Amino acid sequence: MDKLKAKLIDIKQGGFEVLLNSQDAEELGIHPLDRVKISCEKGSLTAVANVTPTLVKRGEIGIFTEVSEALGLTEGELVKAIPGERPPSLQYIKKKMNGQKLSKEEIYAIIKDIVDNTLSDIELSAYVTAVAIRGMDMDEIAEMVNAMVDTGERITFDKSPIVDVHSIGGIPGNKYALLTVPIVAANGVTIPKTSSRAITSPSGIADTMEVLAPVSHTAQKIKQIAETVGGTLAWGGSVNLAPADDKIIRVEYPLSLDPKPQVLASVISKKKAAGVEILLIDIPMGKGAKVETEDEARELAQDFIELGRRVGIRVECAITYGSQPLGRAVGPALEAREALMALEGKYAPRSLVEKSCALAGILLEMAGVAERGRGKYVAEETLRSGKALSKFKEIIEAQGGNPDITSDDIEVGKYTYDGIAWEDGYVQMVNNAAVTQICRIAGAPKDKGAGMIIWQKMGSQVKKGDKLYTIYAESSVKLERAKALAQRLNPVPIGGMLLKRIPDYSYMA
Amino acid sequence: MDKLKAKLIDIKQGGFEVLLNSQDAEELGIHPLDRVKISCEKGSLTAVANVTPTLVKRGEIGIFTEVSEALGLTEGELVKAIPGERPPSLQYIKKKMNGQKLSKEEIYAIIKDIVDNTLSDIELSAYVTAVAIRGMDMDEIAEMVNAMVDTGERITFDKSPIVDVHSIGGIPGNKYALLTVPIVAANGVTIPKTSSRAITSPSGIADTMEVLAPVSHTAQKIKQIAETVGGTLAWGGSVNLAPADDKIIRVEYPLSLDPKPQVLASVISKKKAAGVEILLIDIPMGKGAKVETEDEARELAQDFIELGRRVGIRVECAITYGSQPLGRAVGPALEAREALMALEGKYAPRSLVEKSCALAGILLEMAGVAERGRGKYVAEETLRSGKALSKFKEIIEAQGGNPDITSDDIEVGKYTYDGIAWEDGYVQMVNNAAVTQICRIAGAPKDKGAGMIIWQKMGSQVKKGDKLYTIYAESSVKLERAKALAQRLNPVPIGGMLLKRIPDYSYMA
Repeated sequence: MDKLKAKLIDIKQGGFEVLLNSQDAEELGIHPLDRVKISCEKGSLTAVANVTPTLVKRGEIGIFTEVSEALGLTEGELVKAIPGERPPSLQYIKKKMNGQKLSKEEIYAIIKDIVDNTLSDIELSAYVTAVAIRGMDMDEIAEMVNAMVDTGERITFDKSPIVDVHSIGGIPGNKYALLTVPIVAANGVTIPKTSSRAITSPSGIADTMEVLAPVSHTAQKIKQIAETVGGTLAWGGSVNLAPADDKIIRVEYPLSLDPKPQVLASVISKKKAAGVEILLIDIPMGKGAKVETEDEARELAQDFIELGRRVGIRVECAITYGSQPLGRAVGPALEAREALMALEGKYAPRSLVEKSCALAGILLEMAGVAERGRGKYVAEETLRSGKALSKFKEIIEAQGGNPDITSDDIEVGKYTYDGIAWEDGYVQMVNNAAVTQICRIAGAPKDKGAGMIIWQKMGSQVKKGDKLYTIYAESSVKLERAKALAQRLNPVPIGGMLLKRIPDYSYMA
Repeated sequence: MDKLKAKLIDIKQGGFEVLLNSQDAEELGIHPLDRVKISCEKGSLTAVANVTPTLVKRGEIGIFTEVSEALGLTEGELVKAIPGERPPSLQYIKKKMNGQKLSKEEIYAIIKDIVDNTLSDIELSAYVTAVAIRGMDMDEIAEMVNAMVDTGERITFDKSPIVDVHSIGGIPGNKYALLTVPIVAANGVTIPKTSSRAITSPSGIADTMEVLAPVSHTAQKIKQIAETVGGTLAWGGSVNLAPADDKIIRVEYPLSLDPKPQVLASVISKKKAAGVEILLIDIPMGKGAKVETEDEARELAQDFIELGRRVGIRVECAITYGSQPLGRAVGPALEAREALMALEGKYAPRSLVEKSCALAGILLEMAGVAERGRGKYVAEETLRSGKALSKFKEIIEAQGGNPDITSDDIEVGKYTYDGIAWEDGYVQMVNNAAVTQICRIAGAPKDKGAGMIIWQKMGSQVKKGDKLYTIYAESSVKLERAKALAQRLNPVPIGGMLLKRIPDYSYMA
C-alpha cells in the first residue's frame, strides 16, 4: 500500500482531519487520532487520522473539507499517507495543564497551530480548559495578543490617532455606538468601529446597524470608509482579524467558558489588528450584567489598561450602569429606530443619550480634541446640533445604505403584545436575562423586527392597567411563544415602595 | 420549517451529532455546537448541532452514523428539530474544573452521558483535562468505578473465588500471563483473564495469545470457558465491560494523558465488571517503565488496594523489575513461542519463569490453595510437572485454537537482521522505549511475526562481534526501516565495567 485514493467528504471538522480504513491504519502503524502526513502533487500537510472499519474502503482515504481545500485535492486523486508527528504545541498545552508559565515561543506555536487547523477539537478543548483552570499572567496574555494579531489580517491606517470603543456587553439594548461613533467622527477623530453580531444577546451592534446599511466589508473597505467619512459601524466577522480568537471562542461556547485571559486577549487582539491606537472599554456593571461588583469592574479595567499598555494601545475604561437594559428598545430594528430618533433630536431615553455622550466625550478627550472634563459637553453639542446625524448618514451611505432613512421608515414586528401592571406599585427592576430570553424567543436577532420596548423602568411608579412593556414579533407563532415566556418570567416586576434592602443579599447571588 | 428531511452521513463523530443548514439553525435559534432535540417516528434524542452554510441544504438535516443508528433513521425521512437542553453533566464537568469534589450522582451523570454518546469530543476533552489537572479523591474514584460498571455489561460466575492478574504494563515482552494463567487454573482456581491489545506497545497479552487461539469471545463464552477449564486468555475489548473507560481513553490518547484517577478506575472497573473477586496487580518498576521509583510504586499499590476494598475486590500488588524487557522475546509470535517453550520445559529465560511463577504463587496464596510463603514453590512445581502446559492446551482448545501446537510450529518473521557488538564490554541497559519503537516499525503487533529477540541483557559481558539482538519482520521494507531505526537508537548499548554511578542522575531524567 503505497498510495491511497482520495474520497472527498464534504464535511468541516474544525481542523485538518482524514478518515482511514482500520486495516490500512494498522498497516501504517497509525492509531485512531494519531497524526498522518499526507502528500499529493500540490503539497503536503499533517492531519488527524480518524479510523473506520467500513466507511472508507481499504486503499481509500476519506478527505474532509479543510484538507481538500488546503491541498486542492480532487476525487480519486492518489495521496501518500505516512505516520506524522504530533505538533509540539501539544507539549505546551500539557505544560499549561501542569500549571507552568508559557514562553512567547510556546504561545505563538499554540496560536499558530489553532489558526492553521493543526489541532483537533479534543486538543483545542484541552487548551481552553487548561487556560480556564490554570489562568495566564499578563506576560502570557500579552504574548497571546501578539500571536493572535500576527496570525491574522491587519488594517493599517494612514491617519492617526485611530480610536475605537468596545463594550464587554451583557446588557440588552446596548445600542450606544450608533450615537457614539458619529459623534466622535463628526469631531474629526477617526473611529473605524468593528463590532460583533449577537451570540446570546437579542442584538449585537452589527445586527442593529445592519437594519440601516450593510455591515460586511473588507479590511480595505473599512480603511477607505474610515479615512473618508471618519467612522464605520462594520461587522468584525467580515474581516479576518485575530482569527485564532474565533476558533477559541467556538470551543469555549459549548463549555460556557469565558476565562479572563481569553476575554482580555480577545478584545485587545481584534482592536490591535484593526489598527486601533486609543481604545475606550465600556464595562456595564450591575445585577444581571457580566460584571456585578465594582471591585470586579475595577480589576477588569486595570487588566485591560495594563494589557493595552503592553501591546501599544492606550486604553481607558468606563464603568457604566448595567442593572437594566439601556434605553427602552431591545432588538435590531427597535434599537436602530431608537438610536436614529435620538440622533434626529426626537424623543429618546435619557439613559441612551447620556451614556453615548459620556463615552464619546471620553474618546474626544483621549484623542486630544476636547479638554479634560469638557468631552461630554462637546459630545452633547455635536448631537444637539445635528452634526452627529449628518455624520451618521454619511456612514450609512459609505457602507451602502440609504442615507435618507428616518426613524419613521424603520419597520418593526407587526405582531405585538402588551405586558400590563396587575397592581399599583413601583417597578422593582427590569430583568436583563428575562428581556434577553423573551426577545430571542420572539425572533431577535434573526428577525430584525422582533424585540421589546420597556415602557417603565426601575423605580417608576405605575398604576394597575399601565403598560409595562410591548413585545414585537414578525410571526404570530413567535409572538405567542414570547408572550408565554414573558408571563412566566415577569421581566418587569412590580412591588411596594421598598425597592431595596441594605445590605441587599440578592445582589450577591 | 416544521420538519427537516434526513440526509444520512455515514461518518462516526464519537457522539450524537447532526448537521444543520446555517439559516435553518438561525431560524431555530440554534448556535453552532448547541443541543438540538430531534424526533422521528421511532423516538427522539438530543444531539450536538453542527452548522454549515452549504453542505446541507435548507430544509435538510445531516444525520451522522451514531444518530441514524440510534433512531433507525432512513434517507429522506422527516425529522422534527427543536432547540435542546445542554446535559446537566456539563455543569458537573465545570464543577470539577473549579476544583470541587463531585458527588456520586454527579459522577454517575457524567459517566452515563459518556456511555450514551451525549457528550461531544470538546466536552469529553474538557472532562478529561479537568480530571487530569484537578484530580479526584478516593471517594470520587470509587463512585466512578461503580458508575462505569453499572453502565456496561457484567459477567457473573457461579463459582468462587474468581481471581485475575493485571499488569499496568509499560515494558516490552511482558508475556507472563501465558504462564501465570494456566499455572493458577491447573491448581483449581478460576482465572478468567481478560486483557488488552497493544496500543503503543509491540504486543498486548491479547495479541500474543491470538497467535495460538482466537481471543474475541462473548461474556457468556468467557464465563463458560472459565467455568469449564478454569481459565481464559481473552481480549477484554470483545466484551462491553465498563465501556465508558474506552471512550475516555480514546480522548486521553491524543493528549498523551494518563491521569491516575483514570488509571485506577480503568483497571478496577473492568475487573469488577468481569466478576473478579481477588486481583493481583503487577507494577513493573524501573527506568523506562511507567513507574520509575519505589515510592511511586508503593503509592500506586496502596491506591489500588484501597480502591479495590471500596468496591469489593481484594487486591494485592507485586512490584516487579521493569528496567528492561521481560525475557528475550518481543512481538506477538516471538513472545508466544517463548512462553510455549517455557511451558514445554525447553529453554526459557529465567526472568520470565521467575516472574510468572511469583505472580501465580501470590494468586494461589490469595485464593487459599497454597500456604503463605509456599505459593511460588507450588507454581514452579505446576510448571515443572507439565500440568501448566496441559492446562494451557485446554485453554487454547476451549478458545478455538489447535491444542497440539508446539513452540516449533510458530512462524516468526522471515526477514531478520542481527545487531552486533562493535566492541568488548558490558551491556549497560536494554532500552525499553527503543525496543518498543523498533518492534513497532518492524510491524508489530499487526504483523504477528515481527519483533525482536534480545540475546544479551543488562550486565552481560560481550565480545566484539557477539550478537546483541535480532530484529524480525514479515517484509524486507519493514525490516530495513527497523534496522535503520535500531542503528540510530542503539537499543542495547555496550560500555565499560562502570554500569551505574551512584547517585545516578540520568535515572532522574
